Amino acid sequence: MKKIISKENTTIKHIIKLKEKKYRAEYNEFIIEGAKIVKEAIEEKSNIKNIIISEDALNSELVKNQLKAVIEAQNYILVTNSIFNLLSEVEKPQGVLAVIEKNMYNKKIDYRQDIILILDNIQDPGNLGTIIRTADSVGLTQILVSKGTVDCYNSKVLRSTMGAIFRVNIIETDNLEKSIEEIKQNKFKVITTSLQTDKSIYDIQLKNIAIVIGNEANGVSKEIIDLADEKAIIPMKGKTESLNVAVATGVVLYEYVRQNIERNEW
Amino acid sequence: MKKIISKENTTIKHIIKLKEKKYRAEYNEFIIEGAKIVKEAIEEKSNIKNIIISEDALNSELVKNQLKAVIEAQNYILVTNSIFNLLSEVEKPQGVLAVIEKNMYNKKIDYRQDIILILDNIQDPGNLGTIIRTADSVGLTQILVSKGTVDCYNSKVLRSTMGAIFRVNIIETDNLEKSIEEIKQNKFKVITTSLQTDKSIYDIQLKNIAIVIGNEANGVSKEIIDLADEKAIIPMKGKTESLNVAVATGVVLYEYVRQNIERNEW
Repeated sequence: MKKIISKENTTIKHIIKLKEKKYRAEYNEFIIEGAKIVKEAIEEKSNIKNIIISEDALNSELVKNQLKAVIEAQNYILVTNSIFNLLSEVEKPQGVLAVIEKNMYNKKIDYRQDIILILDNIQDPGNLGTIIRTADSVGLTQILVSKGTVDCYNSKVLRSTMGAIFRVNIIETDNLEKSIEEIKQNKFKVITTSLQTDKSIYDIQLKNIAIVIGNEANGVSKEIIDLADEKAIIPMKGKTESLNVAVATGVVLYEYVRQNIERNEW
Repeated sequence: MKKIISKENTTIKHIIKLKEKKYRAEYNEFIIEGAKIVKEAIEEKSNIKNIIISEDALNSELVKNQLKAVIEAQNYILVTNSIFNLLSEVEKPQGVLAVIEKNMYNKKIDYRQDIILILDNIQDPGNLGTIIRTADSVGLTQILVSKGTVDCYNSKVLRSTMGAIFRVNIIETDNLEKSIEEIKQNKFKVITTSLQTDKSIYDIQLKNIAIVIGNEANGVSKEIIDLADEKAIIPMKGKTESLNVAVATGVVLYEYVRQNIERNEW
């Protein structure tokens, strides 16, 4: 354990940089904040570079309970409360954060699995995090993310994933059209949700499929719709034909579960 | 049209009060903000008490397009930009808001319908708004809300409903247990989602049912689980057995749609 009291310290300056997307991309690192998610990162064997604890947090019951082993092994950097506040991105900091190295290996689609989720320009961090959490809840472990989608390592996204970020393989693509061509060559059916079809998601066999979820306001982009094998509607009964994008993803992914799950699996 | 230039004006002081839950409850009024939702309130024939427009907004294309009739009829109160900022609850105000009178009639459950949604201590405004929006999307028009749930007329909730608030009958209850007893006497089956059961939502006939959705962290309260006719699990395949509450609501409500919808209805 070492103690940092200066905000000019190199580690502190580095972590502050990681609050910006461009530096997270440059260094392939990101910040997680809060006792529970740091504990989860340890349990999930993530590549943890540093754990930072503030002086106040070191005496809090929450931190002592969640991070007992870390504290006993003195496996953390202690900082003053005011330095912690420089690093924190929440209103009421718990005084714990960690720097995680992104997993840069196996960033490829695994075609032995039977489902891929594709995100085309999701903009809201809360929606993106909830989508990653929902994917994890159905055992879906690979998400292909378009360049225009909000950064998956943004602090708000990470908070909404509730730890799912450590279990799901996030594959970023610069060229979504090309990636979708590759998926089709691998005999996966590419499906987009759409209001302009009379085929419902309940009519489609959801197996060896790639499901494209589009932008909150504009849906899936035209180029991607043209590439897709099939358009499917989520049948609605109400006056509005409008669903929150994370809820829509949940409805489709749980239809996949309903079709494919064996009773002994849950 | 009248113009207000003083923040001491009675209408302005009244609207500022409505930012607080206790005054919304006392006056049975609430504020909606933004050109689109105000337009929707007009279309849905809500009881609009006032429409407030700022000087800047009066010249913006957005407001001119969305609220043409209101502006032509001079059916609004004009305020200075600085007064508008006192009323606004968003970071980048569009300069339009309206005061709506809550619909106090028919605040009873309609047992001719075949589904009721019950919310037991939902805490996050974004979740609550998304749940209301999702209910509206499946044509569910009645939601029973426990006293401990966040106020449905909170500005963040209203924003997340995307206008669904005008179409759904929100029935607030001081005594959820008593309300559930009444629902049961009316031959509705009361279902709670739970992890402690091997009956899945896909095994239950979702007709004449009341579905209870519980708190984000603690689920449905014990007293309510004891009253329920049936516990049902949303089968999951992942490592976490954790779903965002709005996504969970969506999964259950769309299973209701899947079971009951006729193809000619969508």
